[in-house]
Amino acid sequence: MVVKTLNARRIGHKAMLFRQLFDSETSTYTYLIADEGTKEAVLVDPVLDKIERDRQLLQELGLTLRYGVETHIHADHISATGRLRELTNCQGVVPENASAKCADRFLGDGEILRVGSVEIKAIATPGHTDSHNAYLVNNDRILTGDALFIRGCGRTDFQNGDAATLYDSVTQKLFALPEETLVYPGHDYRGHLVSTIAEEKQYNPRFVGKTKTSFIKLMNDLNLPNPKKIMEAVPANEKCGKI
Amino acid sequence: MVVKTLNARRIGHKAMLFRQLFDSETSTYTYLIADEGTKEAVLVDPVLDKIERDRQLLQELGLTLRYGVETHIHADHISATGRLRELTNCQGVVPENASAKCADRFLGDGEILRVGSVEIKAIATPGHTDSHNAYLVNNDRILTGDALFIRGCGRTDFQNGDAATLYDSVTQKLFALPEETLVYPGHDYRGHLVSTIAEEKQYNPRFVGKTKTSFIKLMNDLNLPNPKKIMEAVPANEKCGKI
Repeated sequence: MVVKTLNARRIGHKAMLFRQLFDSETSTYTYLIADEGTKEAVLVDPVLDKIERDRQLLQELGLTLRYGVETHIHADHISATGRLRELTNCQGVVPENASAKCADRFLGDGEILRVGSVEIKAIATPGHTDSHNAYLVNNDRILTGDALFIRGCGRTDFQNGDAATLYDSVTQKLFALPEETLVYPGHDYRGHLVSTIAEEKQYNPRFVGKTKTSFIKLMNDLNLPNPKKIMEAVPANEKCGKI
Repeated sequence: MVVKTLNARRIGHKAMLFRQLFDSETSTYTYLIADEGTKEAVLVDPVLDKIERDRQLLQELGLTLRYGVETHIHADHISATGRLRELTNCQGVVPENASAKCADRFLGDGEILRVGSVEIKAIATPGHTDSHNAYLVNNDRILTGDALFIRGCGRTDFQNGDAATLYDSVTQKLFALPEETLVYPGHDYRGHLVSTIAEEKQYNPRFVGKTKTSFIKLMNDLNLPNPKKIMEAVPANEKCGKI
């Protein structure tokens, strides 16, 4: 038996369930999105280490997983999508041109993934990696992956990352969204969960007052250590999370 | 200059800003709640270690802090309310009978704290500690503090905690709320952020199928180590977070 009343947000005639989930080891946000009527669900950026938590939640909420969706090929954690495909009938969805031939579906800029009445629109936002999608959900919230963080952004120093490209993705595509659009990032390291496009345009220190040239310099000067799991995560994620 | 468009949720004619914030060291959730019109704000269970993050967010959103509100006297972290009182004109608010004489205001069961048009109703829910309030916000979401967690509950083995009392608080008061009420806990250790009363009634392993007697036995058998900071946190919080 499943719960009858979920935390739906009614948008027009659509009832959507939206849950943000956190992996504290890698500070990764996973998003569970579902149509409350059809009970079809998507997990965006699921983490292999959290697969049992997420499967239990799907089961308790009476949801059927249709898609495991990636914003990009992750370097910090192994995706749960490969294992979820084995355990359920879900499909693996990645951005167009992502180096994951194993995927079932590739989403190009502007393409829409439908889950019941929920619309998830891919917005190509490369720069952190050479292939990266943000996902606009029902036109009122955007999952920004590692393109845009709350008062930050993803690094651009591996996986063919490119600071100039990321600058254009954020300033020309994400910042062009309506100001009230909610921003749900792929990671947060300071305990923020959500922001808005308005806030990020005004207060994101990576972009406010930065020309493309000064942003490139800022990013090139970061000198960050590699993610701990990069050597295992990237090859695994290129095989849709198979290890 | 502050952002013009915040993530308001319109309830009738009320526009509320609601932000959940996380302290990863102690897995504590802090809640920022504000009236978008009057720009008055409350922080519930603010963490001293995160005071700069929270002050910056208040400033960027153009909010004036009116109250630092505690669900109870915490044992795992030091409250930011004392320091916030020094830095702003906010008042410290605690549950009735909480051992914090320094507080400006004591909220008894059913009392309402108003912040602009936002209503925050205290629901006395002792048991984790002998004085504890949950807070029902605008009648559609409840901050459950350490009474009820997502698929769990607070421990009952210190600060005059009592398992029988907690059982009654949860099953008679919190589970009596409408099923669609959103549950926002004081902590989560597995990466869940929100739940509903319906879900907790059906799936919380601490309560499902448990009589009061079996719940008491379960809680008494937990044998948990003390929180790392208990020796400094409790005395500090009894002085409203002064250290």
